[in-house]
Amino acid sequence: MTREAAGRDEFRTWQRFTTRWADNDAYGHVNNTIFYQWFDSAVNGWLVEQDMLDIANGNPIALVAETRCSYFEPLAFPQEVEVGLTAAHVGGSSIRYRIGVFGIGSKKAAAQGEFVHVVVDRDTRRPVDIPASWRARLKTIS
Amino acid sequence: MTREAAGRDEFRTWQRFTTRWADNDAYGHVNNTIFYQWFDSAVNGWLVEQDMLDIANGNPIALVAETRCSYFEPLAFPQEVEVGLTAAHVGGSSIRYRIGVFGIGSKKAAAQGEFVHVVVDRDTRRPVDIPASWRARLKTIS
Amino acid sequence: MTREAAGRDEFRTWQRFTTRWADNDAYGHVNNTIFYQWFDSAVNGWLVEQDMLDIANGNPIALVAETRCSYFEPLAFPQEVEVGLTAAHVGGSSIRYRIGVFGIGSKKAAAQGEFVHVVVDRDTRRPVDIPASWRARLKTIS
Amino acid sequence: MTREAAGRDEFRTWQRFTTRWADNDAYGHVNNTIFYQWFDSAVNGWLVEQDMLDIANGNPIALVAETRCSYFEPLAFPQEVEVGLTAAHVGGSSIRYRIGVFGIGSKKAAAQGEFVHVVVDRDTRRPVDIPASWRARLKTIS
Repeated sequence: MTREAAGRDEFRTWQRFTTRWADNDAYGHVNNTIFYQWFDSAVNGWLVEQDMLDIANGNPIALVAETRCSYFEPLAFPQEVEVGLTAAHVGGSSIRYRIGVFGIGSKKAAAQGEFVHVVVDRDTRRPVDIPASWRARLKTIS
Repeated sequence: MTREAAGRDEFRTWQRFTTRWADNDAYGHVNNTIFYQWFDSAVNGWLVEQDMLDIANGNPIALVAETRCSYFEPLAFPQEVEVGLTAAHVGGSSIRYRIGVFGIGSKKAAAQGEFVHVVVDRDTRRPVDIPASWRARLKTIS
Repeated sequence: MTREAAGRDEFRTWQRFTTRWADNDAYGHVNNTIFYQWFDSAVNGWLVEQDMLDIANGNPIALVAETRCSYFEPLAFPQEVEVGLTAAHVGGSSIRYRIGVFGIGSKKAAAQGEFVHVVVDRDTRRPVDIPASWRARLKTIS
Repeated sequence: MTREAAGRDEFRTWQRFTTRWADNDAYGHVNNTIFYQWFDSAVNGWLVEQDMLDIANGNPIALVAETRCSYFEPLAFPQEVEVGLTAAHVGGSSIRYRIGVFGIGSKKAAAQGEFVHVVVDRDTRRPVDIPASWRARLKTIS
């Protein structure tokens, strides 16, 4: 279990996301599952922005193998969030990202976790070697 | 604006769905957008069950053109719901469904609305004539 | 059925929202129910920003009575959206908003619809007269 | 990282959930975040069923501190799922659950993970001792 909220210097690239009314659950705060929506939005958003991933037609694609998240402070609609991303480990066909979700201007993460992608062939959905072009881009956020 | 909750006899086929913790919003009830998740689950679930629609590979597919919903009574996790469906109008390439969401055993809909599908070619996404096999199946819930 | 996409001059106030990976459904575009998530985010976001609504503690609150949406053009993650809002009709205890969802820079709405709020007492959840302070603020977006 | 899918004998109580059309993401399978919607639905659903938790008015309530999930096999709407639940560890104020999501009739979990609840006072949201009545009920699924 992660006992301490991460600082901003643990992340290499940042994206901003909006909250939605429906994100707040019965206890009045952003539901825990929404943080995972930001996790795969941050990762896939970065992959698309870097021209690594073409969601509709590209090959390879990347599927989620494992995720985890620790929650420290509640967030609530209508605030916005900043999501920090780092490539913590790049293996043969898998990538482990570290991700932190911050309130705007907060020094400490409201929640942080990990997200493991396996790079697969679009058609067979079997693992493939991570392309050299992906490795070069991943190095910039390692 | 629809002023009166529908009865069960206005619907021809039924499906049952579960609620989820995250469905309850800050006011403690199922958020209005979740009813629309049940709308396209009921319609597409019926299309798949009837062998009309193959989501991954079939042609044609059906895209949403218009929806509406009127809300009468709140629902809340962990209750289950029954969703009634009728084909209210079948045109050249569009289908207008009427849908009601009921608490288990309730005589009156908690919410009801309409859902318009346009049948399109999977690749071009342009409207096509509704296949005769679809028309025959739709007649059974008209 | 609404046959023509709205232009930008039909809306009085604007908010920007991000899409999420999970918004794209099996056909590769933002699912129809997500537009309704933007609808109540835009309305409630505006109410909070104007100090009309305090989600956690305020009284009155506003509940959804009816919504509808017509879809013209698909949207897809990772694009962002601009949501335009107008108060189309203010009654004794209900407010009818018109809402348009636009791709960034698009002249025509990708989807547009209506959203009816009923203003209620937080505890009894029975309709109350719209406060004068709300009416004054609503006039600025009518 | 969890390398092997759990069997059914690792879970003590079961609940059944439906999938929804919007659960399928751009790759045609249930999005990874939906499994977490089932996680807190299974845990909170069980707490409500056992008269331990009253979502709207009860005290204490339970907030999510940490979750994780490993994914083995894809699921897709319109299939249904069975979710198995076990209380793996009960501490002073926290409960660690193990959860598995199975296709109907499948011997191995499609995905499995952990979910940590901290029991808190409804108003202060500070951790409290787990009530004796909760401990007695948790023992039945340990």
